[in-house]
Amino acid sequence: MNINKRAIGPDWLGVDWGTTHLRIWLLDARGHILAEARDDSGMATLSSDQFYARFTRLAGPFLSPDKVIPVVACGMIGAKQGWHEAPYIAAPCSAPGLEDAQIIETRDERFSLYILPGVKQARPADVMRGEETQIAGFLNQNPSFDGVLCLPGTHTKWVRISAEEIISFQTFMTGEMFSLLGETSVLKHSIASSGWHKGAFLEALDAAISAPASIASKLFALRAETLLNDLSGAVARSRLSGFLIGLELSAARAYWLGQDIAIIGAEDLSIAYRDGLISQGVKPQSHHSVDMTLAGLTKAYQKIQGSINAA
Amino acid sequence: MNINKRAIGPDWLGVDWGTTHLRIWLLDARGHILAEARDDSGMATLSSDQFYARFTRLAGPFLSPDKVIPVVACGMIGAKQGWHEAPYIAAPCSAPGLEDAQIIETRDERFSLYILPGVKQARPADVMRGEETQIAGFLNQNPSFDGVLCLPGTHTKWVRISAEEIISFQTFMTGEMFSLLGETSVLKHSIASSGWHKGAFLEALDAAISAPASIASKLFALRAETLLNDLSGAVARSRLSGFLIGLELSAARAYWLGQDIAIIGAEDLSIAYRDGLISQGVKPQSHHSVDMTLAGLTKAYQKIQGSINAA
Repeated sequence: MNINKRAIGPDWLGVDWGTTHLRIWLLDARGHILAEARDDSGMATLSSDQFYARFTRLAGPFLSPDKVIPVVACGMIGAKQGWHEAPYIAAPCSAPGLEDAQIIETRDERFSLYILPGVKQARPADVMRGEETQIAGFLNQNPSFDGVLCLPGTHTKWVRISAEEIISFQTFMTGEMFSLLGETSVLKHSIASSGWHKGAFLEALDAAISAPASIASKLFALRAETLLNDLSGAVARSRLSGFLIGLELSAARAYWLGQDIAIIGAEDLSIAYRDGLISQGVKPQSHHSVDMTLAGLTKAYQKIQGSINAA
Repeated sequence: MNINKRAIGPDWLGVDWGTTHLRIWLLDARGHILAEARDDSGMATLSSDQFYARFTRLAGPFLSPDKVIPVVACGMIGAKQGWHEAPYIAAPCSAPGLEDAQIIETRDERFSLYILPGVKQARPADVMRGEETQIAGFLNQNPSFDGVLCLPGTHTKWVRISAEEIISFQTFMTGEMFSLLGETSVLKHSIASSGWHKGAFLEALDAAISAPASIASKLFALRAETLLNDLSGAVARSRLSGFLIGLELSAARAYWLGQDIAIIGAEDLSIAYRDGLISQGVKPQSHHSVDMTLAGLTKAYQKIQGSINAA
């Protein structure tokens, strides 16, 4: 018992390790942030033997030789190309928690590592890693929610929730297409890196919902209007976003039409999705993705704490 | 007169200088290829003061201090960021020819340079540079053609032709989106760099035409099916192409429905568009884009030759 008391302090680490970033939070038992660290050690830049070194470098200030700190992690860290594979669980399912986590053996006695798994769906084929933990956090705070979650991001997810279960979900590459078209394609000469015109966004969104195929012909027009009519970069950016989110809303109509909707995302992107949905007669609630990730990680941590206290 | 006879030999250079490549052909008066050279000195890699050096390096073997060789060029060489701007002419218009070309002064007495302009359209805003010369070549060979040209490529163009004029046109970024999604996005892990399954292509094309918005949800499924079901890279590549060309055909329906269609493009891409159109009940003719470029450049050259012989 003394060993456990020494081993498990009041603090623990929550980790969100995605494709493009690594975020580590030092948290108290209730999930309040005591300190945090982040860098761009995303999975995409690492081979599987590099995860340990990257983690201990960034987490170093939070680690001590005197105790074993629990580390609860979600995201691409559990992918096949991640630190250690945490096999997907199959939807329909509860949002994964500690009971689904992989406990990873490391030779480093300063921490014990729990990796939460992602969720897969057979038909249509789909996968998520990271969002399931946000969903777990949301459901911990809203256990009676029955409706649809929209998690906008690089790969936006729409998720049907009922009876505290993930019923089905679908992924849209809207965020990645926005980046590729705006930063890499010929449109990069036309699209500003910031700036927002809500009117231009909503007009483009409506055009895409009314005639989804037509966006294929409207993308290059952003370039042509810059060349011929000096279209502003901020308006072009807002229109591009409107076309792509409009196409997504059109395809995801079965998810949001007549449903209770909660958006879980970063602030700017959540506002765009919220404005788009409101224009279609839906009134979504909004939550910050980091808050929900922390809530999901905390729920898992509290089971570790509970099981140790019970031991 | 002697000066002109010395100055203008039987040979000339045709140049297609695009965003990603430079092609130079040594041609006889009828436009038959005597020699050719190409490299990847595309406009995207050059500042405007670098064009002369790049051109003379690649064209060097075709240049002689003893005569002035005519050079007829089309493409991004005439863009604002090109060697020298050849301002767009406005559709509706004839396909640009020598009378629309910019004659560029250079200090290099080995060649005289004619740059053919692109074509612009006010509503919907659109531009082309290079395709207009292919169209000029096609119309020189098919003066009575009344219908629609499809010029597949990085930025595919659909062009209405009547009475030897470009009536209107529309650009689709299908080729660039295929490259970005297949080579740069998360789908790069799923899409093979070659391989073709016509059945998978046509099935995806049909799905996109039937429900255009749905492709937004089907792109990420290519990745998920690789992870969960070992989808083959060649099938994924064919499906991606089918989704994108299907979306384009859906948006371009007014161009091809019930029209005489001629495709002008590189062979593989033309076959995909031809198969897609045939599946929709259209029977297009096909021409190679290089042949049409050469025909368009030759038509312009023959006016230079004619005007000099008449002098």
